[in-house]
Order: sequence, then C-alpha cells, then structure tokens
Amino acid sequence: MKKVAIIMGSASDCPVVEKAVTTLRDFGVPCEVRVMSAHRTPDEAAQFASGARKAGFGAIIAAAGMAAHLAGAIAARTTLPVIGLPVSAKKLDGIDALLSTVQMPSGIPVATVAIDGAVNAALLCIQILAVSDPALAEKLDAARAKGREKVIEADEAIAKQFNV
Amino acid sequence: MKKVAIIMGSASDCPVVEKAVTTLRDFGVPCEVRVMSAHRTPDEAAQFASGARKAGFGAIIAAAGMAAHLAGAIAARTTLPVIGLPVSAKKLDGIDALLSTVQMPSGIPVATVAIDGAVNAALLCIQILAVSDPALAEKLDAARAKGREKVIEADEAIAKQFNV
Amino acid sequence: MKKVAIIMGSASDCPVVEKAVTTLRDFGVPCEVRVMSAHRTPDEAAQFASGARKAGFGAIIAAAGMAAHLAGAIAARTTLPVIGLPVSAKKLDGIDALLSTVQMPSGIPVATVAIDGAVNAALLCIQILAVSDPALAEKLDAARAKGREKVIEADEAIAKQFNV
Amino acid sequence: MKKVAIIMGSASDCPVVEKAVTTLRDFGVPCEVRVMSAHRTPDEAAQFASGARKAGFGAIIAAAGMAAHLAGAIAARTTLPVIGLPVSAKKLDGIDALLSTVQMPSGIPVATVAIDGAVNAALLCIQILAVSDPALAEKLDAARAKGREKVIEADEAIAKQFNV
Amino acid sequence: MKKVAIIMGSASDCPVVEKAVTTLRDFGVPCEVRVMSAHRTPDEAAQFASGARKAGFGAIIAAAGMAAHLAGAIAARTTLPVIGLPVSAKKLDGIDALLSTVQMPSGIPVATVAIDGAVNAALLCIQILAVSDPALAEKLDAARAKGREKVIEADEAIAKQFNV
Amino acid sequence: MKKVAIIMGSASDCPVVEKAVTTLRDFGVPCEVRVMSAHRTPDEAAQFASGARKAGFGAIIAAAGMAAHLAGAIAARTTLPVIGLPVSAKKLDGIDALLSTVQMPSGIPVATVAIDGAVNAALLCIQILAVSDPALAEKLDAARAKGREKVIEADEAIAKQFNV
Amino acid sequence: MKKVAIIMGSASDCPVVEKAVTTLRDFGVPCEVRVMSAHRTPDEAAQFASGARKAGFGAIIAAAGMAAHLAGAIAARTTLPVIGLPVSAKKLDGIDALLSTVQMPSGIPVATVAIDGAVNAALLCIQILAVSDPALAEKLDAARAKGREKVIEADEAIAKQFNV
Amino acid sequence: MKKVAIIMGSASDCPVVEKAVTTLRDFGVPCEVRVMSAHRTPDEAAQFASGARKAGFGAIIAAAGMAAHLAGAIAARTTLPVIGLPVSAKKLDGIDALLSTVQMPSGIPVATVAIDGAVNAALLCIQILAVSDPALAEKLDAARAKGREKVIEADEAIAKQFNV
Repeated sequence: MKKVAIIMGSASDCPVVEKAVTTLRDFGVPCEVRVMSAHRTPDEAAQFASGARKAGFGAIIAAAGMAAHLAGAIAARTTLPVIGLPVSAKKLDGIDALLSTVQMPSGIPVATVAIDGAVNAALLCIQILAVSDPALAEKLDAARAKGREKVIEADEAIAKQFNV
Repeated sequence: MKKVAIIMGSASDCPVVEKAVTTLRDFGVPCEVRVMSAHRTPDEAAQFASGARKAGFGAIIAAAGMAAHLAGAIAARTTLPVIGLPVSAKKLDGIDALLSTVQMPSGIPVATVAIDGAVNAALLCIQILAVSDPALAEKLDAARAKGREKVIEADEAIAKQFNV
Repeated sequence: MKKVAIIMGSASDCPVVEKAVTTLRDFGVPCEVRVMSAHRTPDEAAQFASGARKAGFGAIIAAAGMAAHLAGAIAARTTLPVIGLPVSAKKLDGIDALLSTVQMPSGIPVATVAIDGAVNAALLCIQILAVSDPALAEKLDAARAKGREKVIEADEAIAKQFNV
Repeated sequence: MKKVAIIMGSASDCPVVEKAVTTLRDFGVPCEVRVMSAHRTPDEAAQFASGARKAGFGAIIAAAGMAAHLAGAIAARTTLPVIGLPVSAKKLDGIDALLSTVQMPSGIPVATVAIDGAVNAALLCIQILAVSDPALAEKLDAARAKGREKVIEADEAIAKQFNV
Repeated sequence: MKKVAIIMGSASDCPVVEKAVTTLRDFGVPCEVRVMSAHRTPDEAAQFASGARKAGFGAIIAAAGMAAHLAGAIAARTTLPVIGLPVSAKKLDGIDALLSTVQMPSGIPVATVAIDGAVNAALLCIQILAVSDPALAEKLDAARAKGREKVIEADEAIAKQFNV
Repeated sequence: MKKVAIIMGSASDCPVVEKAVTTLRDFGVPCEVRVMSAHRTPDEAAQFASGARKAGFGAIIAAAGMAAHLAGAIAARTTLPVIGLPVSAKKLDGIDALLSTVQMPSGIPVATVAIDGAVNAALLCIQILAVSDPALAEKLDAARAKGREKVIEADEAIAKQFNV
Repeated sequence: MKKVAIIMGSASDCPVVEKAVTTLRDFGVPCEVRVMSAHRTPDEAAQFASGARKAGFGAIIAAAGMAAHLAGAIAARTTLPVIGLPVSAKKLDGIDALLSTVQMPSGIPVATVAIDGAVNAALLCIQILAVSDPALAEKLDAARAKGREKVIEADEAIAKQFNV
Repeated sequence: MKKVAIIMGSASDCPVVEKAVTTLRDFGVPCEVRVMSAHRTPDEAAQFASGARKAGFGAIIAAAGMAAHLAGAIAARTTLPVIGLPVSAKKLDGIDALLSTVQMPSGIPVATVAIDGAVNAALLCIQILAVSDPALAEKLDAARAKGREKVIEADEAIAKQFNV
C-alpha cells in the first residue's frame, strides 16, 4: 500500500496534526510524520516532495499556520495530491492560513480542508488511496456507518433528555 | 480508466466550470458533466453520489456558489474524494462559498480549491487518478514542465522589455 | 397546536440549543428535539424533513456550526418555515456558520437568526405559529411587555447607581 | 387570507425588492408595498408595525441597506414574524446590512435571508402563511416541483453540450 | 452647562460604559445615565431623544452591541450630536456593532468611536460642549498635556529599562 | 458663526468630499476646504490643526482613504471635534480607511461616519455648531422634516405603482 | 551601486509592477525585472534568491497575487531584505495576497507594502540602499519635498475652487 | 555601526516589542527603545523621526495597535526605512493595526511585518544594515543555519515519536 506523508511546518503544529496520524493508523494506512518548513528548511522540503512519489507515497498532508506556504511549496515539487491543512495560530483564527493555503494559482492545486481539520486531511488521503483499493473503500464505508451510528445514539440520548 | 464527475449546482456556474472540462479532456480523462442542486434536486444529487463509485467514477468535482452546500451534500453520500469548487456570485466575492465548502466537520472531508479555481479542481482529480496510474502521472509531469516553460518564456519576454 | 422541531447537527450544539427548548416550553409550545446531521445522517434528516408537515410540525429550527448545511438540507425537503441557527465553533466565531446558513439560493429560504441566537430561533417559531393563533400572539405581547419592564427596572437601578 | 407587508427603507431599494412583489403575486398572496425609513420616518414605521396584525398582515418583509435598522425597528413594535432582507449598497457588498439585520439581541427576532435575497424573503412569508393554509402549502410544493424540473432540464441541456 | 446623556442598550453594557461616566465627571460635565433599548423600550428611547434638546442635553452617547441600532434610533429622533459607542459582545469582537453603528444613511449621522471606546465617547461630548465653552476647552487642553506627560514618563521609564 | 474646516488627504478625494461642502453651504455654515496630507504635508496639517480653534473653526472634517491617518493626525493637535470621513479607494471598499479612522486609542477621539459618508460628516458639524445656536438647530429640524416628506412622497409613489 | 531585483510571479502582474520599475529608474537605481514563480519555477526562484547578494543585489521586490508565496519563498533563500508586494486578483481585492505575504513566521521576514503598492515597494528599496548612500538619501529627501509641493499646489487649486 | 530605533506607541506594547530588543542584541546591533505616540506626543515623534538619520540611526521600528498611525507618522518625517509592527489589542486580533500600518499611500512606504511579529521586525532592520555590512550578513546567514538546524532536530524528534 502507498504511504501517506504528514509534514508540519513547525513542531508546534503537532497537537493539531497528531489527530491525522491517529486517523491513518485506525485505517491501517502507513504514514511518515515529518517537520519541514517552507521557509526554514526549503531544500529539505523540496527534496522530499520531489522524491515522494518514487519513495512510495500516494498523498501528502502539509500542515502550517499564518502565511502557510508549506502546502504550496510541496505541491510545486510533486504531482502527487497534496492536502493543505491550515493551522490556527494565536491571532486571526487561521483565516490567514486558510487563504494562504487554498487560493493557489492555476496549475498547482492544493486540496484544502477546514482550519485545524486534521482528521479530514487524513480521511481525504485514505479516500484517495481507496480509489484503487476496494478493501480500503469498504473500511471508509464502515467508518461512515459508525459515524452515522454515533449520531443516531446521540439522537436517542437527546430524545430521552428532552422528548419524554 | 476511472471517470470524473463534474457537478454544478446551477447552469449559471457553467462559465466557471467549463475550464475543468477542458482540463480533463486535455489529459484524456473521461468526465461527465451534470447539473444537480443540493437544494432543488437533493434526491438526484444523493442518488448520484451514492452510486458514483459503482458507476466507475474515481473523483467528483462539486461546484457551487453562495451557501455552497453541494460539495458537502455529495461528500455525505460517498467516500470517493470530493473536490469542492467555490464559485463567486454577484456579492461577497465567493468568500461565503469558500467557507461553506471548506469548513466541513470531522468525518466528511471536502478537498477545496480556490474561488473559481476550476482548472485546479480538474488537476486535483487527475492527480488522484494518477496515484495508481503511472502514465497519467507522467502526463502531469509533462504539463508541469510545460507550465515551467511558459514562465521561463515570460521571463525572457519581460527581460527584453525591461532589462536591456 | 402545531409542534416545533429543534434539530441540532451534533450533540455538542446542545448547550446553545437548549435555550430554544426552554423558550418554547415557557410559551407552552410543544417541541421535539433531535440530533440529525446533514452529513452523517443525511437520510434521516431528509426523511424527517419530508414528513415534518404531515407529522404535525409547524416550524423547524436547524442548528449547526462551521460549514452549517443542516438548515439548507432540511429546507430542501420541506416547505415548512425553517429557522437557521448558526452555532459558533472553536474558530471564526461562527461567521462561517452564519454565511453557510443565510446565503441560500433563490427558491429555498432559510430564516436565519444571530450566531448562537437560540432564544430568538424559538421566538420566531412561536411568532409563526401565532399568525393563526391569537392566544399565542397575546402571550408574545405579554412577554414583550415583560421584556420592556425588565429594561425599565434596569434603567431605574442604573439611575440609582449613577444619577443621584 | 392574511396580507404581507413589504417595507423598503428607501425607494432606491426598489429594484431588489420588486422580485418579492412578483413572487407573492405569483402565489396569489396579497401584499402591500411601502417606503418607510427607520431613521427618516420612524414614527410612520413604528405606527405601521404596531397596527400591522390588526390590519390583517401575517408577515412583514423589511428591506434595507448599510446600517440596516429597519427590520429591527419593525420587529421592536410587533410580534408578527419580520423577515429581514439585507440590501447591498455601493460599498461592502451588503455585509454591513447583513450583520445589522441578523445579529439581533434576544427577545426581538428578525428572520434574515441572503443579501439581496428578495425572492426568498417572499417565499418565507408564503411558507409562514401556509402553516395554517393547506392550499397555499400545496402551491409551495408545486413551485418546488417546478424548480426541480428546471434543474433537471438544465441537467439535460448540459448533458447534450458536454456528455455526448 | 448643557448635560450629556449616556444611554446603554442593556445593563450588561455597564462595565464598558462606566468609563464614560468617570471621564465626564473628571471634567465636571453633568451627565445622566440611562438604560433604554431600541428594541425593548423603543417608545421610551424615542421620547427621550425627541425631548433631549429641550431637557438641556447637549450631546448623547448611545452604547450598544451586536446589531447595534440604539445610536441610529436615537439619532432619528433628535438633531443633537449622537455619539455611537459600539460594544463588543461574546462573538465577532464588536465588528457587527461597529458596522451597525457607523454605516448610517445620509441625513442621520452618528459620530462613531472605537469598539468599547467609552473614554473617547465621553471626550467627544466634552469637545462638542467646549466649542462654545472656552473654560472647558482649556480643561481639554490640560488633559491633553497630562496625557502627553504620561507618555513622556513612560518613555523615560522604558529608557531606564532598555537604553542604559 | 464658527467655521468648519474640510481637509482632504488628497485632491483625488474631492468627488466624495464636495458633497460635504454643498451640505454646509445649504445650511449657511461657512467652511474652508483644504488639501493637507498626514504623510506628505504633516507640518502643514499639524500647524493648521494647532491653530484651528483660534482661527475661528468649530469643527474639522478630515477625509482620507487607505491607511487613513489624517483624522487622527488632526485630532492629535487640537481638542476641537474632529470628524473622520473614511474614503473608499480602489481596493478593500474602504474597510481599511474605516478601521484606520475609527479605532483611535483612548484620549484622542475621532467622530467617524460611514465610508464615503460626506453628507453626514457635514451634518455632524452643523449639529455640533447648533448645540449653542438655536437658529441652526431649527434649520436642522426643518431639514429633517423635509427628509421625512421625501420618504412620504416616495411611499406614495410606490403605493401608486404597486398597491392599486 | 547595488541593484534591485523585481520579481513577479506571473507576467499578468506586470501592469502593477511596472510602476516600481519607473520609480527605481527615476532615482537612477539599477534594477533587473524577472518573472519567476514560487510554484511553477521554484528552482529558478530559489537559485536566483540564493545567489542574489553575490550577484550585486541589495534588495528584492517580490510581487504576487492570491496565495502569494513568492516573497516568502525568496526570503527563505536569502538574507537580503525582501519586499513583499501583494497584487490584487479578480476576487477578494488582494486580501488573500496581503495575508499570505505579511503573516510570515519568526525568522524569515518579508517587508510588506500595500496591496498593489508598487511605487512604495520601489521606494523602500531605495531607502534601504540609501542607508549607506548619502547621495541617494538626498534624492529621497528631494522627492519628498516634491511630493510636498504637489500637495501644496493641490491645496491652492482646491482653495481657488471652493474658498473664494 | 548604525543604530536601530524601536518606538512603541504605548508602554503596554512592551511585552510584544521586547522580543525585537533581544533579537537586535543577539546580533550585536545597537538599539534605542522609546515610547512615543503619534497621537499623544506627536511633536516628540516628529522631531525624533526628522533627526533620526543624523543621529546615526539606520532603521526605525514603529510598533502600535488599533488605528496604528505611528509607523506612518514616523515615515512621514524621515526617508530612513521604517518597519511597521502591528500590535494586537483586546479586540479584532490586530487586523485594524495591520491595515492601518500596511495600506500606506504612494510616496511614504512602511515595511510591514506580521501582527505581533517583533522578531521579524528586528531581523528586517538587521538585514537592512547588512546590505552594506558583510560581517553582519554573515551573522544573518549563521542564524539562518541555526534556524534550519532547529527544524531538523525537531524533525528527528518527531520521527522518533511517530515513525518508529
């Protein structure tokens, strides 16, 4: 199975990013977690991105905050699908990271998820790998069914609380 | 090869969306273009999404403006990768469509591209299909090289204009 | 008397939503509280909405955060008045939920109230039922008079504090 | 049948507002169109709102731009449902009118629709009247069906254009 | 001397507003503090505003949050200068109150100060009264000189800390 | 009678600002129009502001766009009431000018009006002068009555168009 | 004298950028204009930036729109001062480019100017070079004096128009 | 070596600003820290700015919040490079300070850094001085190398935590 790379721009993004790791592991999808900065280690990031397809990766999550250039920098060096995960910083609630990640020019797409949306970044990678992996697709369907069950249980709990 | 579905919420989104069609055709990726509305034809949209994987689709682009629920509505009914394409309307420059598309709750990811970013929506689908299709990946690399050439040509033209 | 449905997209919206329940009970308006998600239980939500008028509901409150599609998804399946209650999440102060709820396309209205404005969502339902229920309209007038009295009392208390 | 009042804060809002008139007439709902300003004719507006229920109105649309206080001013004087229609002005794309209309304090709800969303303002009134008027509810269902047909026709037209 | 009225839309605005009271008292300007709501006690607010000039007031501060209509409602009923003081609420940091207060239509001005800027609201009233009161103008100049001194002292303290 | 100064930061603000001149002339209030820039002629602006009270001015309008510092720069040098008029530029619809003008720190108030709200800037000055000038106050009341009449006429015209 | 590099991310930025060229030429500062994209020609951009100091450049202007990563990408590869020039695109008025350019993380500064502020980007470079070049500093002072004269002339023209 | 001036508009900006002092000291660049307000001590600020070049300064950092005019006021009086450091206040997360600082009109540039980005403000000054100081440029390169090392160490630490 292809691997997923999770790159964060700074170790301080780890509390947000680790939910992506957990999600990938829950699905049995191998992943590699890295700290690489578009600005502080641009060569490392460029080199990693350039070689990612050959190294067996099928998708890359790039998580960064503020003027979040990481996803774009990675996307500029690979034609693998790159998931942009905008991370909220102390100010502006992540709207700077969201716009810096999603408003990419034609030719270099970044698949952007919600601010701090690490679980969905991972799920998107799994969905991408599942396009050619029916067993993984079934796992996704099962997880959806579970998600549905949880809401139905919550519905029943709320009903007991309010609708007697 | 898997197909790509391009769904627009209204026929008025067509001028934006058709660049996605052109891009997919340029890469020889088969696509099907549909008008389905999360609000006016929710059953048709739900049914299409539910059956999309079986029908041979590998990714779905959902384009909509304003309170753009289409991508989320499609994503709720399939575990295929769904690309959200926020379309700008007469007011607010598409910021409403962007937030309505990208700020998805955990469990139901939408891979969002830039406002009116139809070309990148298509490229993202091609990248997704290319994960398991080395020939398609090569075409992407070739297109990148071409894009690079264009910038280099522009650089030379600008040099002639300014740097004599 | 017609009933009011209060649907929340997630049990985590309950602290905001329960003020709507209290308000409805204060007016003696029967209500049913549900958890249904536009994305995790779309079929349940669709089915509920489709059958709501026949089931004796006169108005539906739909509360959701982030890319808040719930009100729109409900409104797409019923011609009952749907009140959209945008709920603030950890980031963006609910502006994403507000735009996702209020910016509905022509044909499918959602009557949107303030971010976290659960009391007003309930009052709007009561006002709607009161259009054909003079006794309920009188209760609303009485509540308004009470609200007025409270401000007048506050005015007197402030006067004692500052205007001696 | 109860009437609908359509109040605009300025005659310059007429091009937006008249779509609400057309919609109400299409449904055979009687309406009265007025120009009353929260700031220039506050007494007239207050008096109208206070007497609206007795005068046979069932819902009031209040359309205004910029610091759009009209809907709130009307809602302060009646317990009829008040629909707030934020109108875009030359600057800010109506975001000022939207926030001024929707962010009402507890106790005085305004049912807000999209910026310049006159058709939906009218539909909301019709939905409100239809709560106790099964014949009108049927007309709404019929209009929905028609709206659905239009999308299906657009889907077929697009199919012919792109999916041959 | 003319009096200043300080009106707050809700007693909950008091912690912000009381700095305006203190400032006016520091300058020996008589003031009256009131709670009056554009929405809950519109008649009281209208009556107060209509009679304010005759009652000896020279300026009115109106403080409110969210869809802050109070300043506009007061300004609609008097031609005295009305100072709008936008108060921040739990969400949106007061940007809704700012736009609702400042974006007034032609004909009915509101002199708006910063979000939660109660001291400046008071100073503006004093400046207005001082236009025809040279003694008060001198007090304002003295306060400015004092403000200047404070900054110069802070400059010296910082110099000791950093510039040795 | 005290004069009003109208200062614009750039001659390009003239199309917006001249409505203030017209308004002041309509009320017979003497005014002086100047171009002075907080950034290009700071000494001239400072000198003008410092001497404005002695020169017989009663209020100052400062109109500027973008990082609109003019009103604050003027207010820093006088204790006369300073009206800030944010002017919209090519980009951002004046939101930069609004925030730069209104968000003044404690001690130096700027009375801010709507973006491009030149008429209200003038009216505010007239209201300020009218605090100690009953004849001017009567003119303001007369203008209000006229404004009211215009709305009532518009109401009648709309009635003829729609309510037959 | 050190040279200034002006890099634009796309030839379509040229109409904005050429004002920077004109400004530099007016001051006799040698410049080189290039088209290099952070995303389409990242290697060229990186290589240029890495060698810029040795190649005799003293400052670099990087102009880009949307998710404007160019200035950051250049800044990541050089310790020369990098001026970020956010360029407005069809949507969002350049607010995305501004945030993407200015919100840089600690360690990699970008000196950001106004949206489309090409003249100031050039002036900033000249100011930087002038720190160690008194003759250039004098030219800047002379230009300032000229700018001041222009405002004074505009002031006189306005005076003739309005203050007779 | 030329000195750097760090001016803050209020002593309350000190917790943000002192990181700039530390950074400059780390590089052995002499600096002077001052409190000067564009509004409360405009003469002191103007005088300082006018004489800064002669006093041996090579760059000026101006830190201020809200309607942050300080950087512009300083820039208006000197042709030295002025770095604008927008400081976040209690409300609006510094977006008001950012726009007030960066949106300068043509002719008077302010080199703006991120909200609360004090370290980068200092680094920018060092970069400016280093244009004509190869030894300082080397120190900058060394700091960059250190920054790179830190990210690489973080990468290794994360690898140990996640990639075993």
